[in-house]
Amino acid sequence: MEGNARLLITCTDRPGIVAAVSGFLTQYGGNITELDQHTTDPDRGSFFMRVAFRIRDAEPPAHWLKTEFRQEVAEPFGMDWQLSFTTEHKRTAILVSRPNHALLELLWRWSRRELPAALTGVISNHPDHREPVEGFGLPYRHIPMEQGGQQAAEAAMLEQLRDWRVDLVVLARYMRILSPSFIAHYPSRIINIHHSFLPAFAGADPYRQAFERGVKLIGATAHYATSELDAGPVIDQDVIRVSHRDDVAHLRERGREVERSVLARAVRWHLEDRIAVWGNRTVVFGT
Amino acid sequence: MEGNARLLITCTDRPGIVAAVSGFLTQYGGNITELDQHTTDPDRGSFFMRVAFRIRDAEPPAHWLKTEFRQEVAEPFGMDWQLSFTTEHKRTAILVSRPNHALLELLWRWSRRELPAALTGVISNHPDHREPVEGFGLPYRHIPMEQGGQQAAEAAMLEQLRDWRVDLVVLARYMRILSPSFIAHYPSRIINIHHSFLPAFAGADPYRQAFERGVKLIGATAHYATSELDAGPVIDQDVIRVSHRDDVAHLRERGREVERSVLARAVRWHLEDRIAVWGNRTVVFGT
Amino acid sequence: MEGNARLLITCTDRPGIVAAVSGFLTQYGGNITELDQHTTDPDRGSFFMRVAFRIRDAEPPAHWLKTEFRQEVAEPFGMDWQLSFTTEHKRTAILVSRPNHALLELLWRWSRRELPAALTGVISNHPDHREPVEGFGLPYRHIPMEQGGQQAAEAAMLEQLRDWRVDLVVLARYMRILSPSFIAHYPSRIINIHHSFLPAFAGADPYRQAFERGVKLIGATAHYATSELDAGPVIDQDVIRVSHRDDVAHLRERGREVERSVLARAVRWHLEDRIAVWGNRTVVFGT
Amino acid sequence: MEGNARLLITCTDRPGIVAAVSGFLTQYGGNITELDQHTTDPDRGSFFMRVAFRIRDAEPPAHWLKTEFRQEVAEPFGMDWQLSFTTEHKRTAILVSRPNHALLELLWRWSRRELPAALTGVISNHPDHREPVEGFGLPYRHIPMEQGGQQAAEAAMLEQLRDWRVDLVVLARYMRILSPSFIAHYPSRIINIHHSFLPAFAGADPYRQAFERGVKLIGATAHYATSELDAGPVIDQDVIRVSHRDDVAHLRERGREVERSVLARAVRWHLEDRIAVWGNRTVVFGT
Repeated sequence: MEGNARLLITCTDRPGIVAAVSGFLTQYGGNITELDQHTTDPDRGSFFMRVAFRIRDAEPPAHWLKTEFRQEVAEPFGMDWQLSFTTEHKRTAILVSRPNHALLELLWRWSRRELPAALTGVISNHPDHREPVEGFGLPYRHIPMEQGGQQAAEAAMLEQLRDWRVDLVVLARYMRILSPSFIAHYPSRIINIHHSFLPAFAGADPYRQAFERGVKLIGATAHYATSELDAGPVIDQDVIRVSHRDDVAHLRERGREVERSVLARAVRWHLEDRIAVWGNRTVVFGT
Repeated sequence: MEGNARLLITCTDRPGIVAAVSGFLTQYGGNITELDQHTTDPDRGSFFMRVAFRIRDAEPPAHWLKTEFRQEVAEPFGMDWQLSFTTEHKRTAILVSRPNHALLELLWRWSRRELPAALTGVISNHPDHREPVEGFGLPYRHIPMEQGGQQAAEAAMLEQLRDWRVDLVVLARYMRILSPSFIAHYPSRIINIHHSFLPAFAGADPYRQAFERGVKLIGATAHYATSELDAGPVIDQDVIRVSHRDDVAHLRERGREVERSVLARAVRWHLEDRIAVWGNRTVVFGT
Repeated sequence: MEGNARLLITCTDRPGIVAAVSGFLTQYGGNITELDQHTTDPDRGSFFMRVAFRIRDAEPPAHWLKTEFRQEVAEPFGMDWQLSFTTEHKRTAILVSRPNHALLELLWRWSRRELPAALTGVISNHPDHREPVEGFGLPYRHIPMEQGGQQAAEAAMLEQLRDWRVDLVVLARYMRILSPSFIAHYPSRIINIHHSFLPAFAGADPYRQAFERGVKLIGATAHYATSELDAGPVIDQDVIRVSHRDDVAHLRERGREVERSVLARAVRWHLEDRIAVWGNRTVVFGT
Repeated sequence: MEGNARLLITCTDRPGIVAAVSGFLTQYGGNITELDQHTTDPDRGSFFMRVAFRIRDAEPPAHWLKTEFRQEVAEPFGMDWQLSFTTEHKRTAILVSRPNHALLELLWRWSRRELPAALTGVISNHPDHREPVEGFGLPYRHIPMEQGGQQAAEAAMLEQLRDWRVDLVVLARYMRILSPSFIAHYPSRIINIHHSFLPAFAGADPYRQAFERGVKLIGATAHYATSELDAGPVIDQDVIRVSHRDDVAHLRERGREVERSVLARAVRWHLEDRIAVWGNRTVVFGT
């Protein structure tokens, strides 16, 4: 029995929060189908909760339920919160440079309904991916990044994202460094895939760094982009075993598989409201 | 902020259960520190929940809190439930045959306070492990299993377990098949480690079976013992990669590592009230 | 320094084989770049070896080198052997039913030059995949499998495979059971992906079987097809962790990722002459 | 059929090495049971090989075989090499500080004959482990590390290691930094376990660093100690998945399991002559 709505809540811990939220849902005819809750250590005292619930008939109407929840529960407890219905898919844009593996993985999963997103389109600094993207019925916007033209290119991208009214931006191997001011437009709403097990091998060419260091595992990290490069809150990571037989080209090839699956998982979790950001860390529920 | 008490609840799903439980805890001064809840598909309609909470001063007293919970919440909702305090460790006995690796792993973790158990003693059909067991300050009971003497041996074991008033029996590579009537004394309270990835290679000598079949991964399975051999509810499983280089002796050796870690995890989860049994499956919370 | 040729050898073990092969290669100007050798237990006494080597200028010519090797080394030692050059890609056909994930994974990897195959085309009992397959520049052959028409359909497929002169057939989620006589045409040259961790859950609907049994890991197995269903030599296997939260549909979805990567690995290893079959097991070199 | 002797060879690549070595072994009555060979990229041109072989009757005698090999093969090709017999176990000492988990893991495995070492004894800067170590029949040497007394303590340790004539030193969570001059006595013969996935979290308290960074996997790294802290050639690494639920104490506890298994594997591989050092990387054969 899957829910058709969910709440994601962050606030300062104090007694009675679960009782207030679950009491509210019971009163308005909601039946909880999945609940996860986490409280951090005492001196920080943060409370996180995700509740999936089923509410019949869309009675009460969504906007009214949100108003009531704000007044009765969220404001008294000082919550950061969002209430969403599974029919409301987040508007999502993908940014990509030349490598197409992460892009194709996302498009393919989306076409199988494995990613509950409303994809708005793909932006790239390369013209290469127009055909497959349009083949999936999506707009493709080529915004070249000329020498010295980063500011203009970012302005064009921001305008496009605004036109698309996006809720989420996915950097599917977008190889240009975005400016802090760009990133500030989408706090905790830009997901990047970095092709190493962060914090090892931040920055450029991580597979070469991994080869030079002689590691026996390589990995990938999905994280929210922040103004500091490769240092934002980690959402998910994974690794695979490599050996002395793998040169840099092999590491790149084998790493693509990990990048694809880690990014797809992280994007899905965000789309399902499973991730709460806590300082520079994440709480990931129910996975 | 860790809780000092927890509830593990199974019942038929209906609206209002979370509200009732969390409302009860708030009313009696408990603060929820971790909550996991799961509802199965609609036509089965089972509800499972684990709540860890902190309640100050041991006020109200434990037995009174249990009485109140039974009357106010558990009985109205028809719950299977248990409320336990983290200071109440489950009384646990270990049964073992000749291989000592799983036994030593459990004793060693217990001595580091990684297993919150009150170990009552070790029973074996072999005399071999007396010295290490007594070295950990535990009683060792050698009950030989002579030809045709299974019934007598099981009776002696049951008497010993009753004397020790055990809550949990761990089969740490106990190689004799226990009778259904023995197992019926401890329903969902006997944890066995089987040295294969069940349901593959049930029965005798699973590493030889794995070698003969030429699999590329070997595994171990911790499960609750039921009257049907190697068919009870699975608690945890894990695997490691093997190759054509590994003969049966190598598989056995490499498998010991997986057996040890899978069994230790499963026992710990049981001791922390993280496992609910649902038909022939388990719900494992918060791991 | 990668080799441009390789030998894969199976024979009865006796002293001097490595010396004979490496002596031959040195004499003809080859430099060994990678060598793996394996000898089974004494009472079976089988010898397996893969040698990758670099030979300059294609001097001596390939067919002459093969003739010399046969006379000087292979026949005296009674070897099963193949000598191939990395420029000779194996002619490979893909058979697929409705699910497209394994097919697309292979096509993507092939288009990125990660699979050193000469793809000849795709055969399906469904019309669905024509567009993507032809988009990759490959012929698509729809051979429907009508009620009672298995014999005719298999005859048509065999004729197509002969026309294409295929060396390898990949069953990328081909859901019909092929007859022993079909399989006999391509001994150790048909690779199937089964969507479970064999020998667990052979046969139909393995994800439902896995759900019913309540396992905590699900897997996939790539194996050579033999006349006995799901019982041929295992090439590779892998698993992922699942939980009580995953219903059958989730297991299917999550399993697709494992199926894709396990099949792609197994096909690549075959294409690179890394796999020797030993009874119902495989020796897999240098992975 | 396992070999009773093995060769581990490093030299500059050139044609004919495998032929020379295998020809030599055939001539002296050896039968190769396992051979692994690796050549690095062309501009480095390094050649690595491990050969396990069976030679009957210890005829010719070991020292004579070594002399012949040096003259006929090793010197002409300018090899770094070692020829050892499986009956010659490497003399191995363990250094440990307060945490006992890695120490006990090695002792258990050694007592089960899983580690083919001749353990000479244990040195610690703490008195705590005397009883278990002596229980395994091994000498325990307590060398306290007083304020400012590092030089004297290292001198005492070196003298003890010389007395024991050790071939290999294992740092099983030895928490003091050894001086470059100490390490220089045992080049590529000191194995350390670091409790992180290097190069992430080098230095002190890696689990706290991992917690602060919010990573989703924690790991351990076995490497040869060099004069630069935590920067020597990596032998093996592994990771486990963690979550927001794990505080620093949990990470430490869960990490111990990975540390134990990674260190035990690395030590075993060294004892079996499977590891060649290539600059700051390792070639690990046949695992």
